[in-house]
Amino acid sequence: MSLIENLQKRAAVKKFDPSKKITAEQLDQLQSAIQLAPTSLGLQSFKVIVVQDAETRAKLRAAGYNQAQITDSSALFVFASLTSLDEAFGKKFIDLVADVRSVDRDSLAGLEQMVLGTLSSRTDEQKVAWSHKQAYIALGVLVSQAAEIGVDAAPMEGFDPAQFDEILGLKELGLTTSVIAAVGYRAEDDVYSKMIKVRRPKSELFIHV
Amino acid sequence: MSLIENLQKRAAVKKFDPSKKITAEQLDQLQSAIQLAPTSLGLQSFKVIVVQDAETRAKLRAAGYNQAQITDSSALFVFASLTSLDEAFGKKFIDLVADVRSVDRDSLAGLEQMVLGTLSSRTDEQKVAWSHKQAYIALGVLVSQAAEIGVDAAPMEGFDPAQFDEILGLKELGLTTSVIAAVGYRAEDDVYSKMIKVRRPKSELFIHV
Repeated sequence: MSLIENLQKRAAVKKFDPSKKITAEQLDQLQSAIQLAPTSLGLQSFKVIVVQDAETRAKLRAAGYNQAQITDSSALFVFASLTSLDEAFGKKFIDLVADVRSVDRDSLAGLEQMVLGTLSSRTDEQKVAWSHKQAYIALGVLVSQAAEIGVDAAPMEGFDPAQFDEILGLKELGLTTSVIAAVGYRAEDDVYSKMIKVRRPKSELFIHV
Repeated sequence: MSLIENLQKRAAVKKFDPSKKITAEQLDQLQSAIQLAPTSLGLQSFKVIVVQDAETRAKLRAAGYNQAQITDSSALFVFASLTSLDEAFGKKFIDLVADVRSVDRDSLAGLEQMVLGTLSSRTDEQKVAWSHKQAYIALGVLVSQAAEIGVDAAPMEGFDPAQFDEILGLKELGLTTSVIAAVGYRAEDDVYSKMIKVRRPKSELFIHV
């Protein structure tokens, strides 16, 4: 089955089957896809909190308009941007590149200059907004991977980010919530996944020049 | 080949082979994936300008730090957010849902209330920022689709959005540039696609709760 066919079958599930859990292997595949998602300059300036603990999810549900997906899915993926994208962060990234590629750090002077220049040219607020957007790329890749392996993934923006930060202790970790996605299996009586998918026609969505 | 394997093989190509063009079918598949990407409330509040015209691309390249990907790829995808996400936009979306699902418009009163409420609760600036993020989800899905069909896709943020808007006449169309991606085939001597992919280890990227 092609990705397009799988994307056609996927749905923004609202009612998950709490008794049907994804396997550890599937959870790992979803994480691999997020790990492989491209990000600006390759910085990956976010983390993903994979929440399976029932008590924590009950608290998050209260901070998410009581939406059942938060507790009834197999896992809740909470994307969170790093809040301190400073020079030390940039330099540590260059250390990582040097290490992974087994190259001399000095050979990465050009990349380092670009990374540090980009970071220093933006305010903290701009950097976090930029970082949130990178998390959205990874969210798109997560949705694609879930569709491929037949797992339902429901991205969600309807929650209170400040409360999520508080419940998950993200401030202390130097993180702030970007966006979330519930993953698992749809309940048989989920009405949303039975509805016809609404998408704008290509003639409206695309302009050819 | 799985999506994960394909994502492992993909690269942020810097040098495309200008003589190697993607087919019309591949271009259509990339557009299908973007069309199927999830967006908040299903609104799809962006368009994608698919630029193949050489003259336009030469101008865009000048507004994109002279990066060769802009002219040498098969096509440049310019994601652009709608700038007017007003009540009329929300109502037209409900018309679309009613039409696609062949349901009475009145049966969508709850959805309409949610859509209009969401739109009216944000400033124009907040709505455009929100809309840009939705485009980034679609960018992630585009990258996944390209990886699946063996097409190189290089997302790019290094360009002047105001100049892009100007060159493409986006203001008049009620649009403003979000992010771009060059698609095509890597040149045989592209150095970036030969480098070892750098990704943070899962132990750093994920937190389990």
